[in-house]
Amino acid sequence: MSAITSETSLVQEFLAPLAVAEPGAFGLLDDCAALTPRPGMDWVVKTDPVIAGVHFFPNDKPGDIGWKALAVNVSDLAAKGAIPRAYLLALSFPTAPEREWMSAFAEGLRAAQTAFGCHLVGGDTDKSTGPLSIGVTVFGEVPTGRMVRRATARVGDIVYVSGSIGDSALGLHARTNGFARKFWPIDTEERAYLNLRYLRPVPRLELRQALLAHASAAMDISDGLAKDLERMASASGVAAHVRLADVPLSSGAAKIVASIAEWQTKVVTGGDDYEILCAVPPSRAAGFERDAVASKMRVTAIGTFAAGAGLSIVDPSGAVVVLDRTGWDHFG
Amino acid sequence: MSAITSETSLVQEFLAPLAVAEPGAFGLLDDCAALTPRPGMDWVVKTDPVIAGVHFFPNDKPGDIGWKALAVNVSDLAAKGAIPRAYLLALSFPTAPEREWMSAFAEGLRAAQTAFGCHLVGGDTDKSTGPLSIGVTVFGEVPTGRMVRRATARVGDIVYVSGSIGDSALGLHARTNGFARKFWPIDTEERAYLNLRYLRPVPRLELRQALLAHASAAMDISDGLAKDLERMASASGVAAHVRLADVPLSSGAAKIVASIAEWQTKVVTGGDDYEILCAVPPSRAAGFERDAVASKMRVTAIGTFAAGAGLSIVDPSGAVVVLDRTGWDHFG
Repeated sequence: MSAITSETSLVQEFLAPLAVAEPGAFGLLDDCAALTPRPGMDWVVKTDPVIAGVHFFPNDKPGDIGWKALAVNVSDLAAKGAIPRAYLLALSFPTAPEREWMSAFAEGLRAAQTAFGCHLVGGDTDKSTGPLSIGVTVFGEVPTGRMVRRATARVGDIVYVSGSIGDSALGLHARTNGFARKFWPIDTEERAYLNLRYLRPVPRLELRQALLAHASAAMDISDGLAKDLERMASASGVAAHVRLADVPLSSGAAKIVASIAEWQTKVVTGGDDYEILCAVPPSRAAGFERDAVASKMRVTAIGTFAAGAGLSIVDPSGAVVVLDRTGWDHFG
Repeated sequence: MSAITSETSLVQEFLAPLAVAEPGAFGLLDDCAALTPRPGMDWVVKTDPVIAGVHFFPNDKPGDIGWKALAVNVSDLAAKGAIPRAYLLALSFPTAPEREWMSAFAEGLRAAQTAFGCHLVGGDTDKSTGPLSIGVTVFGEVPTGRMVRRATARVGDIVYVSGSIGDSALGLHARTNGFARKFWPIDTEERAYLNLRYLRPVPRLELRQALLAHASAAMDISDGLAKDLERMASASGVAAHVRLADVPLSSGAAKIVASIAEWQTKVVTGGDDYEILCAVPPSRAAGFERDAVASKMRVTAIGTFAAGAGLSIVDPSGAVVVLDRTGWDHFG
């Protein structure tokens, strides 16, 4: 094991190979990158840092940390109907990283950027007194003026979600809770799947065409389905109603929810789903579902947007579900 | 004093007012911003976080912290010949900030974005176990393909710097060193100027036309003149020679350098200058100086680029100056 001894070595040896395919990155030899969307396209941009102890465990595998740092940002692009193109990386280390750690971290980034179709174009490295912090800024392309927005859900729209909800929160819980690991009624494969959903989320990029063609609003779910839907409804000036029984679950999550009462609601508040939440007008629902099927991504209608304000969730008996909290608010 | 109790309040009350003039910011109600350079222009992008205890003091005035966080990033754009247009802001707090702190911080950002001509377009807020961290990503425009690069200095080019060197390092030193405050042979105004240069650096945006028209390479000086010139020379595959006596100093810095031997060299390694370092071919020097004068920005020729590698600095006697270190390397 040996620590990295200069910023130049860290950047040129481990990061510059991730930037070779993008001429505007100038081989990471410049302070800045030059980036221009293709004619007829807008950049969609987003920055979302991940921090050890907040968004991942400091002893997570470096490859998983690298993957997740990029994936959670690309997930935002996916919800906007954008094609990922490039990212900046601002790394702040508590101590100079070991070469082995940095090499595995860069491999996780490489796997993610290959899977998502984007390239590193620049960034910055620092040492600080804080935990490891990874600040990613992503750039994606949408046709000019076509970014799918969050604040544009309309009364009557159907609430859809992609994939399945709650897996990542369950995967996280199982990592830190011995009871869950021992007694949850799931098999080894289901357990591994929940863990993978936490460690290596996969942005739902395949929904791009369906969103651009049919959705009136969309966002990715990172702070809990309930919290994020509340935000979409509030930003759009409408209310949202959800049928808890319709929230899609993976097979492992479904077994846990069926046997452990508290998880019936915790799946919708757990966060880290990186699924897409969207609003689709009823007239567009069939087309949206058809395009989603064509992209091999499951989408599920779970409720409706209505006049009014706030979020209400009903259980199969029609009773309103009361949540302790709706999700993650760092200052709540 | 009262702490902020939700991310929505933090964003909508304190930050959204900084985003009203940019339609692509969507009032900070979206997860993403849509940003497109004007026709015929490239985006120049850069991210450079500042962290309490590394880049500023935790008890600095929040308005100064906000100013500096944006200024150090815009300084990179200035060196590239770019016009600042927009920025993203990723805030990570150790505890929820007080309303008074946040209000003053936002005022510092407002003063800076007004001075530099750009607008907030998006970002993210978190709490972490680390110190306050402010991650800014800036977007500036240059005519397509015209970004002034770092790795393109050529043999024979003249080394120029803008403004004066070492002020900020002196201002920082005086803050933490009682001897300096008491015995440095400078007057109150000079002392205040050095302090201001540390707290409120001003990116040299006025040099844009001169750089675009005449410079073969440029970068901003953030980690020390010696360190950054070494990097430019190395990236360009050339050597750099500097005459220490020609390095421009403010009146306060000149008095200190004249009376305290160690500062003769520390001015070129201290960092935080946020001046522009550039390479100008001899045939362009007169035009560069004329355009700089027209922009009211002092520029000074301090040396030359030559065949070979590395940086050498000579004192007035012609002797080579030996530096303890050339500047800041977070992993050196």
